[in-house]
Amino acid sequence: MNEEIGASRETQSLANGSLVAEAVAQQLEAMLSAGNYDGVKLLLSPVQPVDIAQAIGTLPMILQALAFRLLNKNEAIEVYEYLDPSVQQNLLDRLRSNEVLDLVEEMSPDDRVRLFDELPAKVVRRLLAELSPEERRVTAQLLGYESETAGRLMTTEFIDLKEFLSVSQALKLVRQRATFSETIYSLYVTDKERHLTGILSLRDLVVADPESLIGEVMTREVVNVRTDTDQEEVARAIQRYDFLALPVVDLEKRLVGIVTVDDVIDVIEQEATRDIYAAGAVQAGDEDDYFQSNLFVVARRRIVWLAVLVLANGLTTQVIAMNDEVLKQVVLLTAFIPLLIGAGGNVGAQSSTVVIRGLSTQRIQRLGLFRAIAKEALAGALLGVSMAVFVVPFAWWQGQGPLVATAVGISLIAITTLAATAGASLPLLFDRMGLDPALMSAPFITTATDVAGVLIYLKTASWLLGRLG
Amino acid sequence: MNEEIGASRETQSLANGSLVAEAVAQQLEAMLSAGNYDGVKLLLSPVQPVDIAQAIGTLPMILQALAFRLLNKNEAIEVYEYLDPSVQQNLLDRLRSNEVLDLVEEMSPDDRVRLFDELPAKVVRRLLAELSPEERRVTAQLLGYESETAGRLMTTEFIDLKEFLSVSQALKLVRQRATFSETIYSLYVTDKERHLTGILSLRDLVVADPESLIGEVMTREVVNVRTDTDQEEVARAIQRYDFLALPVVDLEKRLVGIVTVDDVIDVIEQEATRDIYAAGAVQAGDEDDYFQSNLFVVARRRIVWLAVLVLANGLTTQVIAMNDEVLKQVVLLTAFIPLLIGAGGNVGAQSSTVVIRGLSTQRIQRLGLFRAIAKEALAGALLGVSMAVFVVPFAWWQGQGPLVATAVGISLIAITTLAATAGASLPLLFDRMGLDPALMSAPFITTATDVAGVLIYLKTASWLLGRLG
Repeated sequence: MNEEIGASRETQSLANGSLVAEAVAQQLEAMLSAGNYDGVKLLLSPVQPVDIAQAIGTLPMILQALAFRLLNKNEAIEVYEYLDPSVQQNLLDRLRSNEVLDLVEEMSPDDRVRLFDELPAKVVRRLLAELSPEERRVTAQLLGYESETAGRLMTTEFIDLKEFLSVSQALKLVRQRATFSETIYSLYVTDKERHLTGILSLRDLVVADPESLIGEVMTREVVNVRTDTDQEEVARAIQRYDFLALPVVDLEKRLVGIVTVDDVIDVIEQEATRDIYAAGAVQAGDEDDYFQSNLFVVARRRIVWLAVLVLANGLTTQVIAMNDEVLKQVVLLTAFIPLLIGAGGNVGAQSSTVVIRGLSTQRIQRLGLFRAIAKEALAGALLGVSMAVFVVPFAWWQGQGPLVATAVGISLIAITTLAATAGASLPLLFDRMGLDPALMSAPFITTATDVAGVLIYLKTASWLLGRLG
Repeated sequence: MNEEIGASRETQSLANGSLVAEAVAQQLEAMLSAGNYDGVKLLLSPVQPVDIAQAIGTLPMILQALAFRLLNKNEAIEVYEYLDPSVQQNLLDRLRSNEVLDLVEEMSPDDRVRLFDELPAKVVRRLLAELSPEERRVTAQLLGYESETAGRLMTTEFIDLKEFLSVSQALKLVRQRATFSETIYSLYVTDKERHLTGILSLRDLVVADPESLIGEVMTREVVNVRTDTDQEEVARAIQRYDFLALPVVDLEKRLVGIVTVDDVIDVIEQEATRDIYAAGAVQAGDEDDYFQSNLFVVARRRIVWLAVLVLANGLTTQVIAMNDEVLKQVVLLTAFIPLLIGAGGNVGAQSSTVVIRGLSTQRIQRLGLFRAIAKEALAGALLGVSMAVFVVPFAWWQGQGPLVATAVGISLIAITTLAATAGASLPLLFDRMGLDPALMSAPFITTATDVAGVLIYLKTASWLLGRLG
């Protein structure tokens, strides 16, 4: 967490950091090529670390290490934490090994673990061996937790106090340990066995009587998560309670780390991207890389979904091939197939979108399972009827008679009702079964509805043809 | 921002607040009906305000005011801020007018403005007239800014210091004003004309020499936003720089408020929901209400998109009706229409999903416009070829000959390439034109591709029929 409120250019009144970084990158490259190193220092001094990191990332690889060496040490560590993993790796290769070690030693444990996740195992082993015993212990511990859990997300650099301290003693302690802690605004109280017994904020400490004891000032009832709690649940808790940080305990309820709000914002964005990608039939991966990855990686992430969808559409093809008698007799029926499966697909997508989003923002729970499905089914029917009011007269005119129009009307309402019901109930079913409801997102619902929709349409048409024809 | 770290039940080791609230609600209703008011107080005392709010929200209306009156005053204000607008209104109707006034007077300005947005204008005018002059001024000011801007999102309750103060004087001031400020962790320095000249954190203050002057300790270069900055840009800035708060200045660069990180998390979620809804052809509204709104509101939010899509599909119908000669001759061609438009739709959806998400997380900008489109077009062609490898033999077998298979193969590759190109370029074009790229999301791309896809397919088939048939 960047509590040292950083610097940026005075002229920049708006906060569009990408633009700042672009402007800086251009000047930076010119100055480095010209050997104007003092100019570089002057240029970078008022720029925020994250913007410097982006600017360095856009430099040619050979200049990256050069620019990086011109930063002072504290700034270098902050900038390094914001660099893309590929740039971080390039720097590891180009800096001298003592420079590398300084850098890795000084990173916060959670950022270091994120870097190690990306590096080859051999490099990680070498770096781990060279860390100081304390940092090695902490890093190995974090690496031991599963990815996307509170254990991986947390930092071990927090301030813990004891109940018998006075407020003024505690304030002194906070002052001493400020530089080694990721946040000083959330403070934790532990007993001899390191069990979490209470929590207080720096605000509580600042307004309290200096003579009172921490045990009197702290709050004893604490919201906490376990090291194995899923990162999404951690994010929801911080968002729900408007916390700046949340304590993480191990199975024996000992305090082992804290998760801060800045990491949680990234989790919320990552989870939203995952849901959006699922809704667009794209397999989610490491989102950071997406716009840098090559064509074959891009294609591979999409072909799995497409293969499933093509297989399902193969069924639709079969259904049509097996029911082609009616199409031979009334070719115009074909013309309404795209409209019908389009309508079914869109209504199904709407229902599944709303339900999946409701599940992930935890809002749908308030409504109850069966009421949610019933409501969506009714909405589907209502939407089908609304569309039929316009589509049926159009079909009558195109088909010059009641046959096509009736088949289209009946199928339209049946298909939209079915699609809405499936769109609402399949994600809910998956969620109940402990599977990711996003697997039942728009593309799957759409394709599944295609098969059923075409079958309903052709069967209705044959039946009508027998009676009207 | 809830810097007073709140209380919850000691037994609750995980942070799933919804479940806590449900359990509390059940006991609450039983105790209230039995008149056990001391029991209610005991039950609620260790529960977090947001969980109390959800529990009260699920009570019958008649019991809501009763439960609310049992809270102590400070807790009542916090709980009130977390209630759904419909429950807030119900309480306004049922509480005595002096109770209402106390409540509204004590709310933070930003939460008050959010409540006023939902209330009938008449009620707002009456409440405004009864507020204290200072709160009235602040509220009227915030109501004057456009919704979804920094001006609406900000709070006016911040701590501002002067450069000539010493660190110890400043600390004393922070202590005095702690209860009236939304955050005490970000501190702002202004000159005589209230222009923002610097910024510092409570951490800076705590570790600084008590004798130094604020002017020496503060950071002069400040990232700030203007009252009319879009809320999404505010959110991106706080996320990018890992800030806890961001200062908001007016056109004359005077400091008028701050936006805190907790409000920003809600904005990020709200914007993600909007994108997800657009991808699912649902019109975004006030998301909070969605699962409470009635069937007709639900249907209305979807019918607009559906109407557009049905119109577009009407074009596909026309294209088929006008090219039905070839279908009359080879009925089996019909069987592949759903597969082809399905493939085109899915590939188009993938490209538009990735591009729209890239635009809103500001990652695509690094790649450049034309490279992004070219990459997506190539990916589309590659995916089309991959699918054709399986689909063409299947079509050959179904169609017992080269005609259908060739038509399907050629169209498949043409359609996926076209769909990917359109899916990537239309959102980018919309973004360039200052329109919301999410309007060009999956459903629109899918439907637009349908028309072109069917046309390509039928024209190819006629041409082949002329040569092979």
